[in-house]
Amino acid sequence: METLILDGKLVAQAIKNELKEKTFILKRDKTITPGLALLLVGDNPASKVYVNSKAKSCEELGFMSIIFELPANTSEEKVLKIIDEWNNNPLIHGILVQLPLPKQISENKVIEAISPLKDVDGFHPINVGKLVLGLNGFVPCTPAGIIEIMKFYNINPSKKNVVVIGRSNIVGKPMLNLLYQKKEWSNATVTICHTGTENLHYYTQNADIVIAAMGYPQFLKSEHLKEGAVVIDVGINRIEDNSKKSGYRLVGDVDYDDCLPKCSAITPVPGGVGPLTIAMLMSNTFKSANSEIN
Amino acid sequence: METLILDGKLVAQAIKNELKEKTFILKRDKTITPGLALLLVGDNPASKVYVNSKAKSCEELGFMSIIFELPANTSEEKVLKIIDEWNNNPLIHGILVQLPLPKQISENKVIEAISPLKDVDGFHPINVGKLVLGLNGFVPCTPAGIIEIMKFYNINPSKKNVVVIGRSNIVGKPMLNLLYQKKEWSNATVTICHTGTENLHYYTQNADIVIAAMGYPQFLKSEHLKEGAVVIDVGINRIEDNSKKSGYRLVGDVDYDDCLPKCSAITPVPGGVGPLTIAMLMSNTFKSANSEIN
Repeated sequence: METLILDGKLVAQAIKNELKEKTFILKRDKTITPGLALLLVGDNPASKVYVNSKAKSCEELGFMSIIFELPANTSEEKVLKIIDEWNNNPLIHGILVQLPLPKQISENKVIEAISPLKDVDGFHPINVGKLVLGLNGFVPCTPAGIIEIMKFYNINPSKKNVVVIGRSNIVGKPMLNLLYQKKEWSNATVTICHTGTENLHYYTQNADIVIAAMGYPQFLKSEHLKEGAVVIDVGINRIEDNSKKSGYRLVGDVDYDDCLPKCSAITPVPGGVGPLTIAMLMSNTFKSANSEIN
Repeated sequence: METLILDGKLVAQAIKNELKEKTFILKRDKTITPGLALLLVGDNPASKVYVNSKAKSCEELGFMSIIFELPANTSEEKVLKIIDEWNNNPLIHGILVQLPLPKQISENKVIEAISPLKDVDGFHPINVGKLVLGLNGFVPCTPAGIIEIMKFYNINPSKKNVVVIGRSNIVGKPMLNLLYQKKEWSNATVTICHTGTENLHYYTQNADIVIAAMGYPQFLKSEHLKEGAVVIDVGINRIEDNSKKSGYRLVGDVDYDDCLPKCSAITPVPGGVGPLTIAMLMSNTFKSANSEIN
């Protein structure tokens, strides 16, 4: 049986197409334009790329976006002041502070300063709590995107043995807490593995679905998997590659070539989970503009 | 090897003794008396027993407590008004609304109305989120008590295979989210099983520690366990027993007599996890009075 390559670009495009239509209607019928405010502190080149591509997606969908750039030595107070202004600006429905922040600024303080109703990243403790409790709140973009990939390809995690590797606040923890909920497209038996896990093989070799989000390039090998497993690769790592002009290439946390023949389905890197993250950010911003979150 | 019976009364007493001393010092040095406000709506006899025993524990430790009783037909508005008053009363450090509530009152609304800084049950979404994120907040009493039992008996879950059965907001979910944290007395590889789990045996038979919180009397049998497992029984169920005057007896979610010979350690019911729940409520109230939560 051939392995199904889960095409994240395709899924993201489908989501964005639908959002574009819904945005057109929202603007026409309610004269509301979804607005996303992006804050970038410092000059991390990767952060700049991310922020710009988020703004570009806004443009594609007919959203309003603003990018506010501040120098690396900006004070925490200044950042909190801007967030406060955005919290009170009715034209802004989503607020995103690009992480990481310079070390004089507390990430927790900044995240907690964002209004939970504009926290489109889903990082505010109250949204984290709502996700756990099964209440209506913002769901972090990457785990939400993974659920969308599964829906698109009709891979239902219900009653399946799912192993999540990694316990980050951004991916591992929300992915875990989404997947065991008594809801459609969840209801899985979920195990969370991490650096403290002994005998990782035992867990992954029995998993129907493995979600790799540990941040080690090409860590997951075919020997970790059972025949026919579904593999979702959240990693994005640069490794040296002299055959490339840039001198590097991007790989996931999964050894793709090694795992491919053993899987029933797998996400590539790039082009797998990645494109969904921005699509779900757009979806969260739209939901906020359309008052779907309360 | 003999099975270790994990004596929850003993652990709870040790915690309460320490709290009593610390309360004496808090009153003497800072003239602060920990205060717990208990709200009981309706006349559920079990709820009355719980509320009274919480007030009794307050008395034992030198806390101030008040019980406010309202009839079953009380409006949601009235309940929210009382909570608001308590939120603003500096003599009250902990607020507990005994669940379940009559159906005209939304439990979620009531829980979200309690100040997160007085939410000694740890049910407010912001405290749920803080627990997931590893931040300082109130931890729900039963899971916190289970960690205390493990500490007392030096059963360290770090790197162990832990299976939590049940996905309730009060036990299963917070237990899961506590146990995988990168912290002392956690760092376990945790699996959450529930009514959607197929082949429960597979998970439990490989577990070093099983935490049973599904609410089915005597469900877990020795055949579910591996030799030498640690079994924590959170269940409290009434079953018919004609040999008793009352006509019933209390049993857990674990078939105690059947499992005992196979375990290395087990909590009895009653006298296992139960006594810890109130002890941890007292601990949370003390922490609030002592400004340990922010």
